[in-house]
Amino acid sequence: MAAELTAMAVADALERIRERRPLVHNITNYVVMNFSANVLLALGASPVMAHAEEEVEAMTGLAGALVINIGTLSAPWIRSMFKAGAAARARGVPVVLDPVGAGATPLRTGTARRLLEELRPDVVRGNASEILALATDDAGARGVDSVHGADEARLAARALARAHGGVVAVTGAVDYVTDGRRACAVSNGDALLCRVTGTGCAATAVTGAFLAVEPDPLAAAAGALAVFGLAGERAARAARRPGSFQVALLDALDEIGREDILQGARIAPVPA
Amino acid sequence: MAAELTAMAVADALERIRERRPLVHNITNYVVMNFSANVLLALGASPVMAHAEEEVEAMTGLAGALVINIGTLSAPWIRSMFKAGAAARARGVPVVLDPVGAGATPLRTGTARRLLEELRPDVVRGNASEILALATDDAGARGVDSVHGADEARLAARALARAHGGVVAVTGAVDYVTDGRRACAVSNGDALLCRVTGTGCAATAVTGAFLAVEPDPLAAAAGALAVFGLAGERAARAARRPGSFQVALLDALDEIGREDILQGARIAPVPA
Amino acid sequence: MAAELTAMAVADALERIRERRPLVHNITNYVVMNFSANVLLALGASPVMAHAEEEVEAMTGLAGALVINIGTLSAPWIRSMFKAGAAARARGVPVVLDPVGAGATPLRTGTARRLLEELRPDVVRGNASEILALATDDAGARGVDSVHGADEARLAARALARAHGGVVAVTGAVDYVTDGRRACAVSNGDALLCRVTGTGCAATAVTGAFLAVEPDPLAAAAGALAVFGLAGERAARAARRPGSFQVALLDALDEIGREDILQGARIAPVPA
Repeated sequence: MAAELTAMAVADALERIRERRPLVHNITNYVVMNFSANVLLALGASPVMAHAEEEVEAMTGLAGALVINIGTLSAPWIRSMFKAGAAARARGVPVVLDPVGAGATPLRTGTARRLLEELRPDVVRGNASEILALATDDAGARGVDSVHGADEARLAARALARAHGGVVAVTGAVDYVTDGRRACAVSNGDALLCRVTGTGCAATAVTGAFLAVEPDPLAAAAGALAVFGLAGERAARAARRPGSFQVALLDALDEIGREDILQGARIAPVPA
Repeated sequence: MAAELTAMAVADALERIRERRPLVHNITNYVVMNFSANVLLALGASPVMAHAEEEVEAMTGLAGALVINIGTLSAPWIRSMFKAGAAARARGVPVVLDPVGAGATPLRTGTARRLLEELRPDVVRGNASEILALATDDAGARGVDSVHGADEARLAARALARAHGGVVAVTGAVDYVTDGRRACAVSNGDALLCRVTGTGCAATAVTGAFLAVEPDPLAAAAGALAVFGLAGERAARAARRPGSFQVALLDALDEIGREDILQGARIAPVPA
Repeated sequence: MAAELTAMAVADALERIRERRPLVHNITNYVVMNFSANVLLALGASPVMAHAEEEVEAMTGLAGALVINIGTLSAPWIRSMFKAGAAARARGVPVVLDPVGAGATPLRTGTARRLLEELRPDVVRGNASEILALATDDAGARGVDSVHGADEARLAARALARAHGGVVAVTGAVDYVTDGRRACAVSNGDALLCRVTGTGCAATAVTGAFLAVEPDPLAAAAGALAVFGLAGERAARAARRPGSFQVALLDALDEIGREDILQGARIAPVPA
């Protein structure tokens, strides 16, 4: 495994976020906007939300990373996502895509696939069913029916990463991150993260912050998931119910430091 | 009073929610989206928010219940509400309507009435002034001016329920739920619920979760209001200011169990 | 300094808010809608969010104040802001404008300037860079390059206030509020306010609540900033991390009373 996937590299990246406070431009869903912004602020980054076709290119041009999240799609927002994405590509601003609900409706699946193909995001982060929904066509008529659950999703992630040339992160009890050539498993986190809305979206936003300071998208994604998962672990030690856990999670993102990462990050190389 | 309005039936319904984790499709207002989603997750259900005309029918088709809330209306959202509502009717997915602000502006009053007439939701949940605003035309040129406050709202609820064939729930210090033939009063809750935005909307979302597992809409609405009110009581014992009360409310929705309901639910039959 | 800028006048205004519970109509951004509503409720006011062209005039007509916040602009929302603003002017409803992100993109800068010129809001509240962005053209080709930071923003605020006949509030470590003729500095607050999204927007919403009960917009803006800052100070004594600080801030807005204001408000006359 490359040096950039060490806990020390993750700690260094978090320190760069806190020093530089990169602007992270989010075109994200209504449900999580407030929480994503607070997650980024607690971490140390600078969030901005802007979705109008008239300004997304200008805003992306100011940003250190662009986060595209399809959680509450509609036609004008889709147009803005493509516009912002193209501006990001043109200017070298890294892009992370969250294909929320891909597989649930044709609008979501189709939009996520088009964004993937046209924008070639540096990182795609989704849960297993979302990544499988994106990969199914690429893999050709499913074809992986004999494989199941996490393994199936890992194969799909690898196929997607190879087809599109970006990193794919599948989050779950253990997160799997691959660029098609290298891969790692991140096993930080807590089950309570599933009891608060928008924690997946927040992990994607945090990935945006890491992309703004870390040129290797595999290292950025793995580092973001490790730090977010560590914050979840810390929060779960402070609170055992979803309302107070959400509050503790924001506190933990603020509090987490170099020592926590060096001692607690669980990033392991796995076969790609 | 029918057996389904006992505390035991409410406890059973909550257990079914937690076992089945029904998908509740919300087309709701921007203000409460995050809170409604967290309320449904804390309770044990699976929330999804989707509002695009292009996907609401598909999403409703996956759902155990549809929640329509008019709190931040605009023309495209209204079209989606009708589309989703029609899909729900066609597929037997129960619908709950929250006529937020009916009576305040013609857009809200008119939209709420049209939704009521065209979709015939299984349950309408509103406060007294919203239910009065919906019922006034039905009752013919007001005509109930000599009746006041809670009594007036109860008459309006009964008239609405009879006219449209669904359940009407008027929430307040004591909630009144009727299908025009049967009625009950639910007296769980705490005044602090009025100090947090979106608690009425959250009660409607919880009603959606109950509708997904309980075929009698009167039982579903009464049960939802009892459980939400009980969570409010529990939260009020833990926190006496609105910020910490909101956090405690989410914790309470997670924590509340069979014994709490059996001992604390206050659902009483009243004249319809 | 006029009598209306005393701590006692601020305490009186807060009591009027709690007695009258004025309806504050917000056309605000998606990120802060929930938090702004909860801030207004915790303070004692009645928030409503409504953005549809079809209803903003009716809603503004019911309100004690109109809050226009450009944080997540798009064309339909801009039209509604002008419509609501015109209705407010016609009916004597006070208006406060929050030019979120003015200076960052042409859409924001241009929209904020047009709103300022056409609606002549009673109060504009922004941070230094937003106020500078609004004032730069008025001041003619920048022209104030030799002045820096807070001083530069104060000059810009004074120029803006004089040009448009309203109050301009520049918030920062010390807030500066001027109507071009009178000015004061408000030095309440805590650095943690910058770690939670939407606290600036919330200060603007609180200004709306004060405008609903206080006819002098300078007194309303200064009082709002003092009370909001005091709540921030109280919250910072209870919580030192952003998640718990946000919760404590809502609690503090509910808890803060006459004595807290009389003892803690720091409003000082400064040269206009």
